[in-house]
Parts: sequence; C-alpha cells; structure tokens
Amino acid sequence: MPNLYLGIDLGGTNIKAGVVTADGKLIARASMPTGSGPQQVVEHMVQAAKHAVAAGAILLEDIESMGIASPGPLSSGEGIVLRSANLPGWNRVPLRDLLADALGRPAYLENDAKAAAYGEFVAGAGAHEQIRNFVLFTLGTGVGGGIIYHGRLLRGMSDSAAEIGHMIVEPEGEACGCGQRGCLELYASASRTGKYAQHLLNAVPQRPSSMRALLESGTPIDSRAVVEHADAGDELAREVWDRACRFLAIACVNTARWLDPQMLALAGGMAAAGESLLKPVLKHFSLLNWKMSETPMQIVLAKLGNDAGMIGAACLARDAHEQR
Amino acid sequence: MPNLYLGIDLGGTNIKAGVVTADGKLIARASMPTGSGPQQVVEHMVQAAKHAVAAGAILLEDIESMGIASPGPLSSGEGIVLRSANLPGWNRVPLRDLLADALGRPAYLENDAKAAAYGEFVAGAGAHEQIRNFVLFTLGTGVGGGIIYHGRLLRGMSDSAAEIGHMIVEPEGEACGCGQRGCLELYASASRTGKYAQHLLNAVPQRPSSMRALLESGTPIDSRAVVEHADAGDELAREVWDRACRFLAIACVNTARWLDPQMLALAGGMAAAGESLLKPVLKHFSLLNWKMSETPMQIVLAKLGNDAGMIGAACLARDAHEQR
Repeated sequence: MPNLYLGIDLGGTNIKAGVVTADGKLIARASMPTGSGPQQVVEHMVQAAKHAVAAGAILLEDIESMGIASPGPLSSGEGIVLRSANLPGWNRVPLRDLLADALGRPAYLENDAKAAAYGEFVAGAGAHEQIRNFVLFTLGTGVGGGIIYHGRLLRGMSDSAAEIGHMIVEPEGEACGCGQRGCLELYASASRTGKYAQHLLNAVPQRPSSMRALLESGTPIDSRAVVEHADAGDELAREVWDRACRFLAIACVNTARWLDPQMLALAGGMAAAGESLLKPVLKHFSLLNWKMSETPMQIVLAKLGNDAGMIGAACLARDAHEQR
Repeated sequence: MPNLYLGIDLGGTNIKAGVVTADGKLIARASMPTGSGPQQVVEHMVQAAKHAVAAGAILLEDIESMGIASPGPLSSGEGIVLRSANLPGWNRVPLRDLLADALGRPAYLENDAKAAAYGEFVAGAGAHEQIRNFVLFTLGTGVGGGIIYHGRLLRGMSDSAAEIGHMIVEPEGEACGCGQRGCLELYASASRTGKYAQHLLNAVPQRPSSMRALLESGTPIDSRAVVEHADAGDELAREVWDRACRFLAIACVNTARWLDPQMLALAGGMAAAGESLLKPVLKHFSLLNWKMSETPMQIVLAKLGNDAGMIGAACLARDAHEQR
C-alpha cells in the first residue's frame, strides 16, 4: 500500500477530512457539521477522520500522519489554536495534541489559508515541476493567502506571513476590524464586494440596476450576485466588480514586487466566478504593472476549490513526517 | 590564514573593494572612481580589488572567492548585468566572468540592495544568532531592499524580489518612471523627500520656512536638509519629513503582513538621520499597525553604512563557494 496521509479542514460550518496519497491525490473523504465549543468540535473532527478512513476502506494504522487546517491565529510549532473569530470560546486550544491522542497518529497544525496554498502548490494550480515559488490569494469572507518559496511554506516568525488581506492598499481608506485602515480585504473580499454593491444601491436610489430587485426582496447581495449581474450587463454591478478586480490587481503587482514568484493563483468564493474574475484582474494588472522589465509571474485560477486546505494539510503532514 | 573573501561594490560614483573574513569582518579596503563604459569600469574594479588585497597585505591567491554588488536589473544566475540606469551604455555585460577572468578567482554577482541586505544580516543590524528572517530597506535616490528568509537571500524567479520602492502605496498617486502609479519610492526616497520640500516652498510662497534661504541661494534641498530643518523646528520641514516617515511606516506594516520577519532595518541616505528617522517611523508604525495580535518585528537602523553591499557581496561569495 502507498503511504497515506489524512487532511482535516476545520471550517466555520463544516469539518472535512480526506485520505490523501503522497503526491496529493484525494482518495476518500467525509464531512461533519462543525458544532460548537472545542470539545464538540474535536469530537466531530475525530468522527470525520474515522469516516474518511472507512470510506477509503483502510485503517487508521495505515495513515502515516495527519495535517489539520484551522482558522488562526495559531502556533504551528506548538500545535495550538490561539483563538478564532469563527469559533467562539476558543482560547489556546491544543488542537494538534487533542487529535493526535484521540486518533493515535502523529498530527501537525497549520493555518487554513497557508494549508490551501500548499495544497494548490502540490496538487492544484502550482503542480508543475518547474513551479517552486508560488502565492495563493483566498478570496472569501476575508482575504487570506499563503506563500511557497523554493518549495517550502513561508510561515514567518509568528505564523503571520502572507496576511494578504491586511496589506494596506489605501492609506486614507476605511477602518478595518483589525485596527488598520485601507486593508485589501475591505476592497476585494467576497463579502465586502456584495456590501459595496448594497451601499451604492442605497446611496443613490435613482440609479438603475438589475440588482434592485434583490435589494427590494430583502435578499442579501453577495459577490456571486454582483458578478452575475455584471456579466449580464448591469452597469452598477460592473462598476462594483471592476473596482474589486482593480484592487486585486494592485495586490498582484505588489506580490510580483515583493516576491517575484512564478505563479499567483486566485481561490475562494470570488474565484468561483472563473474567467469573469481572472480577465479583469489580468486587464488591470497589465495596466498597473511596471514597464521596466517583463514580469514572469503567471496569474491563474486555483484548481482544488474547497479541498485545497484538506489536501494541503495532508501534504504538510507528509513533509513534516518525512523530515522527522 | 583564515578563509578570506573579496567584496566589490559597483556604485554610480565610486567602486569599493574590501577583504572580508568568513564572519563578515572587513579587514582591508580600497576604492576607485567608477569611470564610464563597461571596459573602463571593469578595469577600475580590477584595480580596486588589487588595491584592497594589497592593503590587506595578502595575495589574490589568498582570496577564496569574490562577490560583486551591482545596480540592476541583472541575472545572478548568469552573472550578467542586463542594463543599468546609473551606468549608461550597459547592456548584458557579463560582469561576473569578466572579473573572474581578470582576477583569476571565482566570482558571483548580486544586486546591490540585496547584497546590502545580506551584509546587514550577516555582520550588521541582523547579526544575532536568533535572527533568521530579516528585511532591509535602502532609502537613497531610490528605495530598494532585500529579504532574508531562513538565513538565505530571497531572490525571486527573475532576481526581482524585494523591489520595495515599487510597491504601490497610493493607488491614485503620482506616475513613477517605472510605469506604475503611487510607488513607495515617490513618497519616501531621499531624493523625493527633498523634491517635495522644494515643491511645497514653491507652491505656497507666503508660507514661512527656514528652508527658504536654501531655495533662494539656489542650493538643492535634499532629505538631509529637510531633517535638519525639521529637527530645528521648521514646520514645513517637519510636515515633509513626517509624510515620508508615514509612508515608510505603511511599508513597514506591509512588510510585517507579507513576511512576518524578526527584524526590519532602515539603511541608505535617509537612515543617516538616525533617531530622527527611526522615532517617527516607529510612531506611525504603532498608529497604523493592526491590533489583532502583537507584531514581533523589530524596526531598527542599519549598522554598516555604505559598506553593507561590499560586505554582503563577499558573504554571498562565501556561501556560494561553500556550496559548490
């Protein structure tokens, strides 16, 4: 039997677990609702792991090691989730050791966006032998990301590298919940893109828009609605979507300047728009980017969807296990 | 005799060469005017190298290898300077091999700001055993920099990582010579800080300022004049200096978000202002930085002054030589 690894992705709503081969291929999976409170969540993670193993018709003993992708902030070295905005009541939970003890396998803990970046690098958009320097943006409720440099995840000294969403892109901009002003996340996350559309509709009641029907029916406007209406030709939706894409392009330029990677992939809720996201980002990137020399960085869509964190966590567990 | 390395720093005005020990200590040095045209410049580099070796009372044969710090863009892998804004007429000059052939020692080529970052990391501000992740900003005519991650220089895929000066910090900002808008270099370089003071003095002729005497006598206003007049209490000079420091602080915040390093050091002409630079940068950093978690990154002044590139190039030659 080939070496097998387990990836467990702890989300705000669901827990996903998957059995992954050494080359990042997902061969069995299971999921569970997240539940609430550390004790229940850990129980559900254990069950998801056991179900995934059963779905793969293998035994827990066949798993070399397992990786856990969790929202942060966390300490990957200590295996502790420090606290979590999405998981109330979490405070210094030793998630790694709780799962290692419950399942009897060595475990490793990683930030979910960093795990997703590693998953895309190993088995998704970045899975080409020549790609060694890779960056992922995750465009969801917030904006996160991960950096792979020379084939290794770049964590930083306090597991806080690649906080893409909290780059200051507008020095006189809006106040962010993090305490800064003008963070990228305020201009280019899926949630904020919907909110900005809602804001414009309310601010200028006479301005026509096909999205007004949503507003009037009380349907919350999300980034998916914005891009659908933009693609259908609504001018207001186009303006909102284009603004988000322009800010993402600024972040892409700054990624090229900071890290000069071979590839930058876009993932998360907004990336579900596919070419409707990629094309305007590439257009703005080309307009905004320097003309001094060619920028060899490819900008692409991510490939693994919601499985990236689970697969990446398993691959990180593989690496950590091999380096013991 | 201990292992010795040679560092050669090619500047727009002068060439500096130094004999450096394996731990980054400079033990002998020499300099030459740069001259013009690749042939003359290479001859002067060879002479500077020979003078430095003579000043150290050693022979060229005692040098293990040598590092060359040059303005870019360049290819460190090929050892070629692609072209240079400061060195007219340079186009794909194989500087590494020209010097290796002329001096009979193995040579390595590196971008000057990256070499300076490595020098500060090995033998300057970052020379502490626990510092492994380090960033340098060089604040001169332009703004450059370098990133050290896990003790290694981060070059990027086309030697273009750490182009700190061309981070977009003001999306609707001024046009930069590079083709972008709102680059950091337009707001926080030594040259632009002087120019902004001059602009304000000309734009509002009735505004009092102790710098007017300079303007009237035709003395160009540089960043050193700005900080001197600011320290002496001139309000206009203070406003100009404080604006530059605030933009630097934004770049510091973004450095912490991207890379989460242990230390960020400030070097170059503006850093000659010492505490008059560091204090306002730290003040703005503290105001602008997030409140989500502590940011363990230290912000400090660089220590090696103009020798950083020469020492860093020698240390990179040491590493490359050891890894053959």
